[in-house]
Amino acid sequence: MSEPLRLGIAGLGTVGVGVVRIIRTQAALLEARLGRKIEIAAVSARSKSKDRGVPLTGYGWEDDPVALATRDDVDVFVELMGGEDGPAKAATEAAIAAGKQVITANKAMLAVHGQTLAEAAEAKGVALKYEAAVAGGIPVIKTLMEGLAGNQITRVMGVMNGSCNYILTRMETSGKTYQDIFAEADGLGYLEADPQLDVGGIDAAHKLAIISSIAFGTRVDFDGIQLEGIERVSIEDITAAADMGYKIKLLGVTQMTGRGLEQRMQPCLVPETSPLGQLEGGTNMVVIEGDAVGQIVLRGAGAGEGPTASAVMSDVCDIAKGSAGPVFGQPAAGLATATAATSQRPAAYYLRTALVDKPGALAKIATVLGEAGVSINRMRQYEHEAPEAPVLIVTHKTTRAALDTALSAMEDTGVLAGAPVALRIEEV
Amino acid sequence: MSEPLRLGIAGLGTVGVGVVRIIRTQAALLEARLGRKIEIAAVSARSKSKDRGVPLTGYGWEDDPVALATRDDVDVFVELMGGEDGPAKAATEAAIAAGKQVITANKAMLAVHGQTLAEAAEAKGVALKYEAAVAGGIPVIKTLMEGLAGNQITRVMGVMNGSCNYILTRMETSGKTYQDIFAEADGLGYLEADPQLDVGGIDAAHKLAIISSIAFGTRVDFDGIQLEGIERVSIEDITAAADMGYKIKLLGVTQMTGRGLEQRMQPCLVPETSPLGQLEGGTNMVVIEGDAVGQIVLRGAGAGEGPTASAVMSDVCDIAKGSAGPVFGQPAAGLATATAATSQRPAAYYLRTALVDKPGALAKIATVLGEAGVSINRMRQYEHEAPEAPVLIVTHKTTRAALDTALSAMEDTGVLAGAPVALRIEEV
Repeated sequence: MSEPLRLGIAGLGTVGVGVVRIIRTQAALLEARLGRKIEIAAVSARSKSKDRGVPLTGYGWEDDPVALATRDDVDVFVELMGGEDGPAKAATEAAIAAGKQVITANKAMLAVHGQTLAEAAEAKGVALKYEAAVAGGIPVIKTLMEGLAGNQITRVMGVMNGSCNYILTRMETSGKTYQDIFAEADGLGYLEADPQLDVGGIDAAHKLAIISSIAFGTRVDFDGIQLEGIERVSIEDITAAADMGYKIKLLGVTQMTGRGLEQRMQPCLVPETSPLGQLEGGTNMVVIEGDAVGQIVLRGAGAGEGPTASAVMSDVCDIAKGSAGPVFGQPAAGLATATAATSQRPAAYYLRTALVDKPGALAKIATVLGEAGVSINRMRQYEHEAPEAPVLIVTHKTTRAALDTALSAMEDTGVLAGAPVALRIEEV
Repeated sequence: MSEPLRLGIAGLGTVGVGVVRIIRTQAALLEARLGRKIEIAAVSARSKSKDRGVPLTGYGWEDDPVALATRDDVDVFVELMGGEDGPAKAATEAAIAAGKQVITANKAMLAVHGQTLAEAAEAKGVALKYEAAVAGGIPVIKTLMEGLAGNQITRVMGVMNGSCNYILTRMETSGKTYQDIFAEADGLGYLEADPQLDVGGIDAAHKLAIISSIAFGTRVDFDGIQLEGIERVSIEDITAAADMGYKIKLLGVTQMTGRGLEQRMQPCLVPETSPLGQLEGGTNMVVIEGDAVGQIVLRGAGAGEGPTASAVMSDVCDIAKGSAGPVFGQPAAGLATATAATSQRPAAYYLRTALVDKPGALAKIATVLGEAGVSINRMRQYEHEAPEAPVLIVTHKTTRAALDTALSAMEDTGVLAGAPVALRIEEV
């Protein structure tokens, strides 16, 4: 039987409390699985007196997370405070400098400072683990870094923000507008204190940046992500997409191309019959494609006390067993700097527009599309009241450049009754 | 840079060739990820001269896998021959005795001899790893043993034999009988040399036995599995189930109850809208439920060269990094012997029968069901030609004992025109 592994937990919000709860209730099971005890040496949070529903007696207390990170009786510093800078980063750096192993759930910190933190941890020979930073309880990091270690990863896609998927799903089932459902989700406490992190796609993009680094052996490059939130997804588009057999998802896609690393986080259409299309509510899904394994789909809760604490405990258990490796799967100092590339590969697109209700309007649109080299796969004109005629088009595969030319030419026809909406249809 | 890790690969069928191919084509990537080279020291197979599409020059050759397993230049013995006894077991035992690490894809051997092999490996201090033994490329073992190590596992379910799922899916889409589609699958080479391993549910049950051991800390107990294959699933049931909103799957379910370990592998109905219900063709899916994480769904290819070799390589990479632990997640010597329990928890059931076409026949059936305490949720009688009236019933939750009483009483009514079919409806 080895020595107990002693944790210092900074941050006692939902996730921190979940970790404390698991360590208390599953002590015997953990000891049987690990051959050693997991102990909490000390904790740190904003308020010492707050009742969090778990007893903290017997644990040391630090007001300052940096002091917690460097305590002699702490083997592993568990950073669950969040925030890309500030106390989280200071305490993480202090823990690494003090030779502590580190576990964090902080996707923002890793997406922005991951490279320097990884280099520091590797130079010091300590682990920096972060299963909880991506997709909550789904073991995405472990699957990518270990389970598929024999693969050249070709693409990773995912719905990685449950709040956005909740909003999009609820819009579809209720027929209500984005604004209505945003207010509903906010009222239910489903959104971050700064909701822009969710609906602007930033939180999901943080996760995508981390995934890209592991998948492709490149430095984390959050700024290289082509980012678009869900704020402009209209109920009309959700309804029209459904009518054509698609769902709209805030989809992250990362893949290495000959021109560089393509990272996109944007609303896309996916077939309603695909696993991603069938994903409803707050659940997350990550689809990993490798040259040997083909396609692996992972699905589970992307947030919440239990799932996120489960992911933290996976890291705790790995450290307890002495399993470690480079932070992003390859030594950080040797990671290549990715060239950010925008997608130039052809894709099908969904176009929704409204035409003035005059003879020949539709023909004009079809003509300019054809002239731009954009071929129409399906087109629907709905029964309507004058003066506007709603039109839906699904194109064959085309480049974004050709599509932009077509969109511009459509404006010039004078038959549009509003600005067209164009959304990429992702092959999943 | 550490020393190279030297493999001895026994068995050069589909999976063995896939492993050789990955090691040859991904050498640079593996070295970057692992900080050491992966080398093939020697191989063993039935025929030395057969052209397998990958060059074997530069590798040592052994006719006898036992000789391969004990070679001085082999660090890891990779057993890809298959078969629960015979050369696979002899060579695995020899490798362990010689202090070699072992990787195997052999579910049959582990399901039957897993306990003794694990005890031997742990006594010798060597790894015995088997990611490829369960669900092909899906990292089920790693997810259960490491990714969800902080969870008390409550239930694991899965479709773990792609051939059976192919047959059931093809029956539904084609409307053809089991016999027709079995012949089709056999002709396409989708079935084992002994097809009973597939369609009898034995192969999938081997996998379930391994999963149970990890999930519940019990000794592998293949004999404790309640096992039923797909041979008796009729096209009539597939069609009728679809009409009621269900799919029929060969579903493995394992859970620990107060009375013991319930392990079932049998055709069940699942809602067509559930992830399991939506699984088509040869794909596998494993659903893991833990007290903290909730439900995690893993989906991917359950067989084939690339996916299975990918799983073997996951084990190779773990051993290269020095990550190891007890074979079934807890020291084998301390694993409890499971008490095999049959399910006594209530479930809904699907009943299909045909009645003689006489007034009052349906009432008689409804009456005996009620008298047995079996409550009807939905009932459908289809338009029919005399003299037989097909009837479908979905019951509310009831015990199997009550259902058996009802089935017996139904026979006694004299209004049945054939033996009723009863299938469990699984809550997924």
